[in-house]
Amino acid sequence: MASPLRLFRSAPRIANLTCYQRRHVSAFGYTQAKALVYSAYGEPSTVLKLHSHSLRPAYDEEILIKFLASPINPADINQIEGVYPAKPELTIALGTPEKSAVGGNEGVVEVVSVGANVKGYKPGDRAIMKHTSFGTWRTHALAKDENLLRIPDEFKDISPLSAATISVNPCTAYRMLKDFADLEEGDWFIQNGANSGVGRAAIQLGKIWGLKSVNVIRERPDVDALKKELMDLGADIVVTDAELQSRGFYWEMQEKTQGKGIKLGLNCVGGKATHYLIKCLGEGGHVVTYGAMSKQPLNLNASSLIFKDIHAHGFWVSRWSDRNPEAKAEMVAEIFRFIQQGKFKEVPFEKTIWNSDSTEEQLVGAVAKSGQAFGNKKQVFVFEE
Amino acid sequence: MASPLRLFRSAPRIANLTCYQRRHVSAFGYTQAKALVYSAYGEPSTVLKLHSHSLRPAYDEEILIKFLASPINPADINQIEGVYPAKPELTIALGTPEKSAVGGNEGVVEVVSVGANVKGYKPGDRAIMKHTSFGTWRTHALAKDENLLRIPDEFKDISPLSAATISVNPCTAYRMLKDFADLEEGDWFIQNGANSGVGRAAIQLGKIWGLKSVNVIRERPDVDALKKELMDLGADIVVTDAELQSRGFYWEMQEKTQGKGIKLGLNCVGGKATHYLIKCLGEGGHVVTYGAMSKQPLNLNASSLIFKDIHAHGFWVSRWSDRNPEAKAEMVAEIFRFIQQGKFKEVPFEKTIWNSDSTEEQLVGAVAKSGQAFGNKKQVFVFEE
Repeated sequence: MASPLRLFRSAPRIANLTCYQRRHVSAFGYTQAKALVYSAYGEPSTVLKLHSHSLRPAYDEEILIKFLASPINPADINQIEGVYPAKPELTIALGTPEKSAVGGNEGVVEVVSVGANVKGYKPGDRAIMKHTSFGTWRTHALAKDENLLRIPDEFKDISPLSAATISVNPCTAYRMLKDFADLEEGDWFIQNGANSGVGRAAIQLGKIWGLKSVNVIRERPDVDALKKELMDLGADIVVTDAELQSRGFYWEMQEKTQGKGIKLGLNCVGGKATHYLIKCLGEGGHVVTYGAMSKQPLNLNASSLIFKDIHAHGFWVSRWSDRNPEAKAEMVAEIFRFIQQGKFKEVPFEKTIWNSDSTEEQLVGAVAKSGQAFGNKKQVFVFEE
Repeated sequence: MASPLRLFRSAPRIANLTCYQRRHVSAFGYTQAKALVYSAYGEPSTVLKLHSHSLRPAYDEEILIKFLASPINPADINQIEGVYPAKPELTIALGTPEKSAVGGNEGVVEVVSVGANVKGYKPGDRAIMKHTSFGTWRTHALAKDENLLRIPDEFKDISPLSAATISVNPCTAYRMLKDFADLEEGDWFIQNGANSGVGRAAIQLGKIWGLKSVNVIRERPDVDALKKELMDLGADIVVTDAELQSRGFYWEMQEKTQGKGIKLGLNCVGGKATHYLIKCLGEGGHVVTYGAMSKQPLNLNASSLIFKDIHAHGFWVSRWSDRNPEAKAEMVAEIFRFIQQGKFKEVPFEKTIWNSDSTEEQLVGAVAKSGQAFGNKKQVFVFEE
């Protein structure tokens, strides 16, 4: 327990806090915080609870952060269901009745205050999460430098929504376009699930880098509107599954690639869809899988691998980020610059405001909604006073 | 047409020919040759014909070769059926009534005589085919340097059977073990169809290089005899499909690899078998497909690709050989050295003698036999006077 002396010494810090911050800080420097926690794996709507607790002031190397925005990604749902390989440690650190973890992996924070031995951060700085499993569906947290990737001051004008959603989708698209097929300006790539967050990021990054994209979407009532939307983002070709599978399309792409075929395919569907994606690839092509919306295993013909020299890989941005922290910082800065230049737009999203009046039902409801069928807009928690 | 003068000039060459050679050489220097040819794709037993023709003396850069041994590989059958991507040109060069090609892709030859402008070859030299689609099921042919990979004199003691069967199976095993997973001494690899020609080569090469192998075979009546046979070749573990799929086996391999899993899987089966192979691989593992005995597409879980970082490739030795002629010569020399040192044994084979008495029925019968079910020994044509 903190001694009365320590509480007294922390008093001057409190005096420096902004009006907003004072509302969440008690007389003894403790911050009132809330978090969506779970103590057992299962359906998010069943296992998630809104937990209120208080946080002591940042001490030593600690950084007190408040969340500005945190998206709800499919992987967050899988994590709570217990079917995602990155599992947070369950602890009683937040004073929960049972060992628990906080939901969410991605988010943007503002520094509220810092411990005496923190270097490189000051109140008002912004940061995103450096790794998965920190738990971002909460109002406040005590973090350390190792948990955070500080946003350089030059990018302070980036909206919290853009910053909060940069680590997963844009970074996944970025690495898949860069790391697998030595694409050069003018080269083509093809992707299914092209209207996903990653898909939209790939279209835009491809456009910036002078790549050409074939974008496959599922047949739907508003297909022309979606086609136009993706074309407006920078897509070169948008086709439905059925259009992709037509014989004519294959020959069209052969012509457009001077008979060489496409060098790279991005796959988030799996099953038969992968087969049709690979059919459009040329000799030596690469197909990178980052999702499995169809929940079917990939369908890969041995003859494609052997005679067309196709290579199949997977990509998991969490592993890449953990292994390449410096490159991640550079990549994020590069994407922020694209956003500032108006070349890169965030995905369509639906805000759920999280403020002191928000109920468990409302917040858990937003998570449950995100877990339903595809085609919903991305759900994002936006934190307000 | 050759002038009388040229025929006269070639006479001295004929005088130098051995007894064997003279039997096949007519008074005007023409060689009597036979070849198994096909003029349309289809079942080998239906489309293959034994064609007799004569070959003029080697002229300019031509090399007159006689075949010593030519195996019948599964790919040869696929080629005749028209389902193999490497297709020989159909021509009337051999005087066939219709445009035809000669069957077979692999073989070892002896040089009978050489044209005036041939460098680097002399009668009695041996060579193997440099590329696919030359047509090796024939007694004699006119070739050029570009068609042949000369066997260095130091390897003249290598048996024709070993030399004739080195280009496909041992070279496939060699490259798959070397080029995909950075294996180091003590590392494990796993392969299905382990009793195939490639499988047996991989066991032996792995042993030579200090690698450890898990070898998967199908359940069969004589399973213990086959297990012993593969262990004697240098296998570390031989298991049946069912044994591979048992839970205990997975943990056994985890223990043997200190929890890292196996780095490389060689797959010639496809379907579900690939799934069980991949289950034994560790993070970052590679699975290389070189066949599809089950005729099923590969079954690849997206989660293996994404979260285990598994990479799937194919390997086609013909493409590799065409692109790396010098490296191929070095590799072949290395394997010949292993053979001389007694470290590398040829696969079990069944000879079909091809001599002047051989009938079309006998020769085509050997090809048809090779195309039937697995488990047959490799069929090899051995040419005799």
